[in-house]
Formats: sequence, C-alpha cells, structure tokens
Amino acid sequence: MMGNTIGVLFRVTTWGESHGKAVGCVVDGCPAGLELSEEDIQKEVDRRKPKSSISTSRRERDEVIILSGVFEGKTLGTPISMLVYNKDVNSKPYEEIRHLFRPGHADYTYQVKFGFRDWRGGGRASGRETVARVMAGAIAKKILERFDVKIVGFTREIAGISCDFKAEDYDIKEIYELAESNPVRCPDEDVARRMEDAILKAKSEGDSVGGVAEIVARGVPPGLGEPVFLKLDAYLAFALMSVPAVKGVEIGAGFKVAKMRGSECNDPIVLRDGKVRFATNNAGGILGGISNGEDIVIRVAIKPTPSISKPQRTVNWVEMVEDEIVVKGRHDPCIVPRAIPVLEAMVAIVLVDCMMMQGMIPRFLG
Amino acid sequence: MMGNTIGVLFRVTTWGESHGKAVGCVVDGCPAGLELSEEDIQKEVDRRKPKSSISTSRRERDEVIILSGVFEGKTLGTPISMLVYNKDVNSKPYEEIRHLFRPGHADYTYQVKFGFRDWRGGGRASGRETVARVMAGAIAKKILERFDVKIVGFTREIAGISCDFKAEDYDIKEIYELAESNPVRCPDEDVARRMEDAILKAKSEGDSVGGVAEIVARGVPPGLGEPVFLKLDAYLAFALMSVPAVKGVEIGAGFKVAKMRGSECNDPIVLRDGKVRFATNNAGGILGGISNGEDIVIRVAIKPTPSISKPQRTVNWVEMVEDEIVVKGRHDPCIVPRAIPVLEAMVAIVLVDCMMMQGMIPRFLG
Amino acid sequence: MMGNTIGVLFRVTTWGESHGKAVGCVVDGCPAGLELSEEDIQKEVDRRKPKSSISTSRRERDEVIILSGVFEGKTLGTPISMLVYNKDVNSKPYEEIRHLFRPGHADYTYQVKFGFRDWRGGGRASGRETVARVMAGAIAKKILERFDVKIVGFTREIAGISCDFKAEDYDIKEIYELAESNPVRCPDEDVARRMEDAILKAKSEGDSVGGVAEIVARGVPPGLGEPVFLKLDAYLAFALMSVPAVKGVEIGAGFKVAKMRGSECNDPIVLRDGKVRFATNNAGGILGGISNGEDIVIRVAIKPTPSISKPQRTVNWVEMVEDEIVVKGRHDPCIVPRAIPVLEAMVAIVLVDCMMMQGMIPRFLG
Amino acid sequence: MMGNTIGVLFRVTTWGESHGKAVGCVVDGCPAGLELSEEDIQKEVDRRKPKSSISTSRRERDEVIILSGVFEGKTLGTPISMLVYNKDVNSKPYEEIRHLFRPGHADYTYQVKFGFRDWRGGGRASGRETVARVMAGAIAKKILERFDVKIVGFTREIAGISCDFKAEDYDIKEIYELAESNPVRCPDEDVARRMEDAILKAKSEGDSVGGVAEIVARGVPPGLGEPVFLKLDAYLAFALMSVPAVKGVEIGAGFKVAKMRGSECNDPIVLRDGKVRFATNNAGGILGGISNGEDIVIRVAIKPTPSISKPQRTVNWVEMVEDEIVVKGRHDPCIVPRAIPVLEAMVAIVLVDCMMMQGMIPRFLG
Repeated sequence: MMGNTIGVLFRVTTWGESHGKAVGCVVDGCPAGLELSEEDIQKEVDRRKPKSSISTSRRERDEVIILSGVFEGKTLGTPISMLVYNKDVNSKPYEEIRHLFRPGHADYTYQVKFGFRDWRGGGRASGRETVARVMAGAIAKKILERFDVKIVGFTREIAGISCDFKAEDYDIKEIYELAESNPVRCPDEDVARRMEDAILKAKSEGDSVGGVAEIVARGVPPGLGEPVFLKLDAYLAFALMSVPAVKGVEIGAGFKVAKMRGSECNDPIVLRDGKVRFATNNAGGILGGISNGEDIVIRVAIKPTPSISKPQRTVNWVEMVEDEIVVKGRHDPCIVPRAIPVLEAMVAIVLVDCMMMQGMIPRFLG
Repeated sequence: MMGNTIGVLFRVTTWGESHGKAVGCVVDGCPAGLELSEEDIQKEVDRRKPKSSISTSRRERDEVIILSGVFEGKTLGTPISMLVYNKDVNSKPYEEIRHLFRPGHADYTYQVKFGFRDWRGGGRASGRETVARVMAGAIAKKILERFDVKIVGFTREIAGISCDFKAEDYDIKEIYELAESNPVRCPDEDVARRMEDAILKAKSEGDSVGGVAEIVARGVPPGLGEPVFLKLDAYLAFALMSVPAVKGVEIGAGFKVAKMRGSECNDPIVLRDGKVRFATNNAGGILGGISNGEDIVIRVAIKPTPSISKPQRTVNWVEMVEDEIVVKGRHDPCIVPRAIPVLEAMVAIVLVDCMMMQGMIPRFLG
Repeated sequence: MMGNTIGVLFRVTTWGESHGKAVGCVVDGCPAGLELSEEDIQKEVDRRKPKSSISTSRRERDEVIILSGVFEGKTLGTPISMLVYNKDVNSKPYEEIRHLFRPGHADYTYQVKFGFRDWRGGGRASGRETVARVMAGAIAKKILERFDVKIVGFTREIAGISCDFKAEDYDIKEIYELAESNPVRCPDEDVARRMEDAILKAKSEGDSVGGVAEIVARGVPPGLGEPVFLKLDAYLAFALMSVPAVKGVEIGAGFKVAKMRGSECNDPIVLRDGKVRFATNNAGGILGGISNGEDIVIRVAIKPTPSISKPQRTVNWVEMVEDEIVVKGRHDPCIVPRAIPVLEAMVAIVLVDCMMMQGMIPRFLG
Repeated sequence: MMGNTIGVLFRVTTWGESHGKAVGCVVDGCPAGLELSEEDIQKEVDRRKPKSSISTSRRERDEVIILSGVFEGKTLGTPISMLVYNKDVNSKPYEEIRHLFRPGHADYTYQVKFGFRDWRGGGRASGRETVARVMAGAIAKKILERFDVKIVGFTREIAGISCDFKAEDYDIKEIYELAESNPVRCPDEDVARRMEDAILKAKSEGDSVGGVAEIVARGVPPGLGEPVFLKLDAYLAFALMSVPAVKGVEIGAGFKVAKMRGSECNDPIVLRDGKVRFATNNAGGILGGISNGEDIVIRVAIKPTPSISKPQRTVNWVEMVEDEIVVKGRHDPCIVPRAIPVLEAMVAIVLVDCMMMQGMIPRFLG
C-alpha cells in the first residue's frame, strides 16, 4: 500500500511511462499451481484496447509477455513479471506543449512533486499505466474463478444519460454479454446508443464527457475485510479512487443513504436456503467493513477526459506567464467504457488479497 | 495500512471495544519536539462527545490519558500511547438481543469473520472506536498547525435537507465557528434548525436519518500523494470510507463530474501572486493523485444510524430462525454531527503522513 | 516492519519509556477464539523479572493488564492492548548524568536522531521496553502450543565460559527445566555455577560481562518463510537483532560454515518415518529461507551491559567538552539470562506470523 | 518488507528464475533528478560476473536494460524497471536430477512451501536472483555518492584462511582497489593467493568452501535507523541474511562481545574536530539501533556452495526412496567473492531507505 504497490498478501507493483519503452507489473504472492498463460492475460488486456470511433486512434498491439513466475503453464508462487511494449508512440504533439500545464492533467502536480517529469503523453500519470493493472487483475480474476467469485462492470451513466439496469436480476455472464455488446459498455442497448451519440457530439465539438461506472462482484464469501482500517469498503474505495479520472466512489445505496431513514436503509436479515441473507442490499454487500455474502455493488464517478481540443487557459511554467492551450494528441472523448476492465481489475485484486488475508486461498492451487 | 493500523510514516493503531475496559491508540512516527499535552487531545475528544437532545444519552467523561511518548511537555519521537476508559457502560440491553443480528450492524459479519464476537454495544465495530481516531487526529492537527494547514468539517446535508454554504468564501476559522455554533454542525443557521427538527422527528418515530458531511483542508502544500496507488485522493477515500457508517466518498465536483463536459470540469490554470493556481476547483485540490495547492474538498455519505427502536426483521443465529428485533440501547438518531471531528481526524492523519512522505516535516519540530 | 511495529499478519506494536507511566503493546491480527488470561501473559513476564544477586535491584511488580481484545476469556480477533505500569522508578541517578552520554548506550544516537530525549533510565532505548515484547510473545507462544511448536532458550556462553549442551538430545521441556533451574539459565549446572561466579566477579569490580544465548524451536512445520526478502532466517535475524544489546545472529552452524566444506556442511537428506528429514542440522532448520522441519537453531551474541560503575571517558553534550562518567542506577551485570525470555518471544512472534502467512493458522481457533 | 519486496520508502521488488526468460527488479521511491544510465547499473552487474577459474563456467552477458523511470538521462521519481535476459542456460543437467532434492539447496523447502517448483538451476532460489539486487543496489550507491556515503566489501576469510586487514586504516577507495585486484576479493595479496589455492583444491576434489565477507560503510550520517524494530542493525541483518548462503551476521565486535567486559566493549566517547565521536568501534557504528557516525562494520558467514560433485545422500521425492546424488551443472566452488557486490548492494539499499526515513534525501536530487 505504498507508491506503486498495492496489496498485503497479493501484491501488485506497476511501472512504466506512456511513451517509455514499456508498461508492466510484478505480481507477488500469487498462489502456486494456477494455470496461467499469456493468453489469459491478453484476453483482459484486449478488452481495454480502444475499439471504435469513440476511442483514441493510438493503436497499441499490447502483446503481453510473461517474464517470470510461470513454469510449465502454471504459476510458481514466485513473482510474475509481465509487460507490454509501447510501440505506437508519437511524442510530437506533446513536445510543442511541454511548457504548458494541461488543465485537468497531472502536469503541474508531477512537476511540483518530483521537480522533473516525462511530458510525453502524460508520462506515468497517463491512463496507459492502467494496462498493468488489467494484467494483474487478469491473474486475480483467474484465482477468483476457482472460488466462483465473479466480477462484472458496466456503464451506468454517461453525459447525464443514465440507465436503470437492475444488475441483481441478471447473471454475471448475462450482464457481461450485454455490456460487451456495445462500445460504451452499457447493458441497456437503447441507452447505449444515446450515450454513444452524446460522446460523438462532444468529440465533434472538441470536448469530452464524464460518467458513472458500476462494478458488481457476486459470490463473494462473507467475512472479507480487515477492520478497522483495512475494511473491505475502505480498501475498495482506495483501489478504485487510485484509477485515473475517478472522483467519487460509493458502495450500495451510496450517497442515497443521505436521504434515507434507518428503517429504510437497514437491510432486513432473513434465512434463505438455510443461510443468513439480506432481503435488500443497500449495504452493497458490506457491513462493518466486512463482506456479508450479498453482491458487492460499487459505483465510481469518472470525470470527462481532460484532453480536449477546445482552447483552455493555462500557464507556461518555463516563462511563468499565462497562456492558452489546445491539446492535440490522441484521446478518448469519454473514459468510462475503457475504464471498466481497469475497475474490474482493481476489485479483483482487492478481493483476492482479502480472501488470502482471511485464509481462504491456499498457497498451492494445484 | 493493515487491520487496525493506518499510515506509512505517521502510523496510528487503534484498539478497544465499546463495553471493554478502555479505548485507545498508539501513534508511532510522530516527530519529536512537538508540544503536546492531554488538554490538546481532550479538546478534540470533547468535540466528539454527545451534547444535546439529538445525541445518545450515554455520557462518557472520556478523560484522555497519555501513557508514553511525551516528556517534559514535548513529544519524544517515540510511540505515543493514549486511552480513555469506558465508564458509563450498560450492557443489559445488548444481553437480551445477543442472539439476534441487528440489521445495518456488523453483528453478522463479525460473527462470520471471527467466529466469536463481543455483543456488548457493538464491540469493536461500535462508533466508540472512533474516539481513538480523534485522539490520534488531534496530534496530526497540532503538527499541521505548524505548517498552516487547517482542516474543518461541517454538515452539508441531513435527512434530505441540504445547505448551499460556499466554504471557499470563508476563512477556516469562520467555518469552524459557524458549524460549531449549533448541534448539527451546519454552518447555515436556518438550515441547521430544520435539520435538527428532522432528526428529532425521526427520533420520535423510533427511526434515524442519514446525511452528508463535507471536509475542507486549506493551506495544503502542492506535491502530496504517492501515485499510482497511494494517491492523495485514494488515501483519503481509504481513510474516510473506514469510518463507520460512511457509504460514499467524493472529491471536488465528485459525482457531478458524470454530467460535466471536459471544458467545464477542467480547472483553468492561472497565475496568482506569482504562483500557479486554479481558477475553479472541480478537482477538489487533487490532480493525478497529488495535491495542487487548492482547497482539498471531500464529501462523505453517512447512513442513518442502524440502531432504531422500530421493529425489524432479523435472524436468531443460535436457533437459526427468523425473528423480529427492537434495538434499545442508547443511540444518536443521526451520526453526521458527531462524525465530523472523526472525519477531520482522518484527513489530518492522511495529510501528515503524506507531508512526511514528501519530506516536508522534519523529525525534530523543536 | 516499521518503527515500533513488527509483523505482517500478526503485528506487534510496543510503546513506553523506562521511567514513563507504563510500558505496553498492542497485538493486532491474533486469531479469535484463543483462550487468554492475564495470567498467561504474567507467567512469561515473570520469567523476565530480575531474580537474584546477579540482577538489578529495581523491583517492578509488572502486573499485566489486558485492556481490549479479550472477551469471556477468549480473544476476539481484535487488537489486544496490554500494559504494565512503571512503579519502582528512581530517576535521581540519571538526573546527575543527563548531560553526559553514557558509553555503550543510545544516549548520543537518540539525541542526534530525535533532537530531544528522555534521559531517565534510558527512556525508550531501555531494556525495559522488552517487557512489551515478552507480553506479545506470550500470546504467540499460546498460539504455537496449539500447533505443537515449542520454543526454548538457554545460555550458551557467558564471560568466555561456554557449555557443550546438545539441545537435540533433549526434550524442549527438559531443556526448559534445566535452564530455569539456575539464575544464569544455563542447562549445564556446573557451567552455570562458573558463569554465575564470573558475573559476580565482574560486578564486584564495577564491570559487566557478555555472552551467547541459544534459542531452539522444535516442531516447526516445513514451508515457513517468504523468499526472497522475508525469508525465515532473515526475519528471525531482524527480530533478534532488534533486541537491545544483540550484536550478532547466526543460524545452525552459523559462523562455523566459514571453515566447512560443502560435503561437510550440506545436511544429507533421508527418509525417517516416511518423511523427508535431514541427517544433520547445519542448516539450523532453514534452507533457502524456508523452514525444513528440523529444529530451528539460532544463537545471538549479547554484549556486556553498558552500564558499569567504572569511570569511562565521555562527552558532556551541553557544554561540548570531554568528561568522565560513572554510571550508577540499578543494572544487571550480565544481560544474557534475562534476555532469554525476550529472545524466545521474538522467535515466537516471527513463527506465528510466518505460519499465518503460510495459511496454517485459521482466523478462529475455537 | 514482504515476499519479494524490501524497503519502506526506497522499495526494491525482484523477480525471475535462474533458467526463466529474464531476471529483474522494480525500484520504487527513487528520488527524481538523479542522473542514471544503463552503464551505471552495468558497472556493478559486471562486478558480480564470474571471472576466473574459481567461478562457474556459465557465462551470461547480463546486459542491463532499463524499461522505465528514467527520462533524458535522469530518474523521474517513478518506478525504475530493469532486467537482464537469461541467455547461457543449460537445463539438461537439472533434468536428470529433478526428482532428487539437492542437499544444501532449497529444492525440498520450495517443493513443500509452494507444492510446485522450477527445478531448472535452482529456479527462484538460485544465486542468479541476486543480479537484480545488484541492479537495485547500483542505484542506491549512486544516491549515496551524492551524500559522500561509501560502501566497500571484501573477503575476510575463506576455507579457514583469514586475513588481518584493518579496514579502518584505509580509504574506502584503497580497500576497493586492493580487494578488486584479485579474484577472491581479499585485500591482503598473500592471503588472497592462499585462499585461491584452497578454493581450487576443494574444486579439484569435487567439493566447495565457505568463508566470511566484511562490509564497511563510511560517511554514514548519525541518526539512521527506526527503533525499536526497524533498527539499523536489525534492518541490515534482515537484508544480509536474505542473501542466499548467508548463515550469520554480526555488527562491530559481533560474537567477540561474548568474551568482553563492559569496560572493554563500550566505545569511549570523545570530541574530534568538534564533533562527538568514538575512540574505538566495537559498536560497528550502531548504538541503540541508530547509526553513530562511525564506520558501519558488518561481517557475514557464507556457507560453502551446496552444489558439489561428490556423491551425497538424498531422497527421490517422486518415488519416495533414499538415493544418491551427484550435482553437475556449473557452479562456483566458493560463493564469497561473487557475494560481495550483492552484500554491498543490500547495505546500500538499507542505508538509502534509512536516510529517506530520516528525511535526509530530498524527493528531487537535481
């Protein structure tokens, strides 16, 4: 839980700048004996790739290479080092504006913090860093599969257009298929189309739009989370808020609890199939920082892409004068759809770590 | 960042059950040479005490005792151990319902996780644990004072009644005085009265209400936060989501970014007094996970107190049958006002830790 | 593993100055359901007390108080806060020499590091801090008992007088009884008497003596330790070197390996009772940083007590002039015997933490 | 301080198996603005390479590749990912003995711990992993240079032949040149020749020899180390004991303190050039776990290479029968000389981390 490493027992360290040689991660603490191939990772990395007119025109092959930790197709329990090379790199547009801080970006804060920064494509603060999270998340998901824990993410809202989709009424697989069937990853086809239009409209105006993504984890065993600080909800909020562009995280009823009464917000406790369960899920699957066996439901607010071609006020930090900037480069006019595999990855990483801390995952998964 | 400890360089470990002997904490990593007395801590602890008709009738003296780490009125740089004894304890009402899981509480999840729990007053999951956070936060605040960093919290919304207060137009001291002038800690007097009425109405109906608290940190130097995981916003979300009853955290414009365009959401960068500043503050003082020198603005959603006297459906876990529960005990019908010093404490702890990581606080403050 | 906290899953935080109000610790991560009473802790704390003419005349009752984490005689899985008050405190002799750095002590280094220090009795650097380690170790030992892991320590050498005792030929209980039967904790009665004489002789001359303690852990399951950094031997070396006055740590054959050939040092691998075992134990029970099922054997070098009444050269740091010091206070002329319960405690803490990391200890021990 | 990561603020994560694709590390927390090139790293990696008749015949080019964290020749403050490919790999000899546990190796313990292991060349437990430590250490050394902290290692003893060299009488640069002038890295030329003979004799007999390496750090500022657990000596012992084949660590007088009296062991405190200094250095530069400004002096015991061609008793774990093994492969008959750059690297990593914790190294070194 420090700098570029997340996790207590299942630890992920990411590295790499947007226009550097490569982006990658080291996953330490993965149980041994898990079948794992580059294809397993590639599948998830491919979901993060830009795919359509609503995405950037930067086209990275993002071919996953595993350098360690896997032997004869199975994990060794030793660190798994993985990377993808940066190939479709064009630093030209950044060179021209390297003395201007891009509004909404981390240019100024990196400059202040480190005294020196890689101005090419956002450097370390670029969304490109999230490829490494997806790689690590792919391993976490493979582990979770063994315990029938499933995670899916979808777009809940974009540009003020929101969908009413009730995830609890669908299988995770169904949600996945609905969401993956369109470029905005919204499970409601009609709403998806309107979202896409709104994105394209903003793009055509040199602008961008924000939205809300929702992640659901089903089959999560009760008992996960380490109060009073490493609570499951706190840990998830930490992991998700660390994803670029996320400005809010809520669990279950989230900010709606502010308008609720206790009698309405408390989920009645019932017996179902001889097990303790909850009649409603305002808690979003977490009570007292510990999973309660119901769906973990999380929504995150994602800001509009800061890179826009409309002129913006800024400062030239070399000459220390005010100036105007037009950000060219290649960017998604809406980050939400491509953020979803990243958010899923973070949830998967957190859940595996918590299951390991709870002693639910053996060191050898053979 | 594990279990009951938070912090990398400024580390806080809390301990204690609601009806156990005492509640306390150990603060490790505090710089030496800081003037510190029990009164400094007491002042903050007293702010957390129940004070009026809208609060619980449990009346703890909460007399702070410092056991180590302070010598001749100054911190030694060694661990500071502090505690308050639990004195006004009445476990009777809990005894009667100890076989029933209280809805909205952590009874079930603690039972599942640990296989054994202290059913008296919520045990470790009780809000009483937060006294220890406030004690640690009082030290963090004293350190921040030395660097002119100020933190204030206030009630933004209760029971659907919200105030329009613009914190950016006031001094931190003014906000503090406005908020502390009424029992709901809302800086708008009229709204405060309506909130209080709503709380009392819910209480009279055996119910409770939720709300939103807002915390502002001013004077925060740019450069705090350790990307890509221990980002300042991620760390704050972690710390705040770990506070009991919090179900959502948002920074700056928060969930509103979902409806914004980039051109509207990006804060223009300007020069003010020869310094790089931001014309608006949708970012809430954080860009790329690093503070940008503007006010840190955070809002948290707090659920209605789960303890209500209205009958609720639940399960008797000893006999494994469904049952009904009426929670007696002594409880606040709205947690928001008393949560504010706790939330401020968490923000203070995070900021001190980040300033230490950034090398901004010397080991000796003499 | 930072400052005053040790442990990944079983975490111990100690606090307290020698002449402050109290000394204590918080044990976080202890499994729930373990029967635990103040007597369990007291028993070990009593072993650390000075007992005879070879010890200090400071007589602390050291009455253990548990403040949290235990309910109805069993651990809750929540933090266990414990302390003993400092009662027999006499700061007078320290007041006179507070401007002189005591040779062999941490006076100078604490002054430099923290800029301010508690000069009474060594403050935080005092051996008194180790009471808290013993308290935490007592819990670790109770956990280990459940898994038939046993730890014993004894004196191998004092003042150049060493014993030939072969621990591998005795039951742990026998070793314990032999060692505890005399004040120097040497299992060889004759050698013990000579050691005692040497200690008394040094004492009578205003001097002190050093020695070597040996710790044996038996019944340790193979598989403990987290390469490549948190190896079991590295973790033990860390924990033991952190005990005041320890200047060396060796595992198995230790420094003798320097004179060995591979054919002699390698322990032949054999089958015993159908299990993989080792014919000799030069490895001291650890291979590649992982336990191999044989006895863990560790020796630590302990320096002579730095507090001696013979005049020594030193510096008056207030006036910055060279001076002479005679250390009065109350001190053990040899630390080795009283260090043994402390060293055992550290080994116990490390083993429990490693067993938890290896998934061998459930969260509920009911 | 977990698994494959060491460090609090300066964190090193290593990865890679001996016969896998590559071996590498990620260095996180390195200050920005440090000039760093692949040559800087290469220089240290080359020192670890086998060079003469006393070394293995495996010849790796070990060409260092930096993948991230460096821009325009300077560090960015972001993670530095580095690797060397494994090229001269011959797994054949291991295939034949993969069902036999090699005595003195981690084969059995890895098998037990992980349930599955890479039997080629020792896999993760191979000394080859230490290339990554040397890479990270090279960065640490470059940082230390900026603060005039210098580290050197040399051979103190091999095969029972020891040298009397007094490091305190030489400049660090002189020691370095003396040690590097011969293949055993012993600063005494005559002794070096005898050591080399002893190694070759053992080799010719299909055997191997052990020894003692000494590391000296000079110019270390007083005040480093975080008592009471992350003491400087404890941290060094941890880091050094984690190096393969190390079986003992001692600081300053080390195990000799066991035979000393306090009046002899305590280093007299004096004024030199107006500064507090110590007339002798039995403490090895560390008092109370904190550096005192004198040379840090550490010795480590290194066991004879476990891979020997003499027949040894072992177990075939597939058939679970006793058997005999002859280890072929390519091995150093004595590890000491090649361990020295690795040990230096570990000391450098620890010192940088401690200086950062003490606030002595700015985030930007420009």
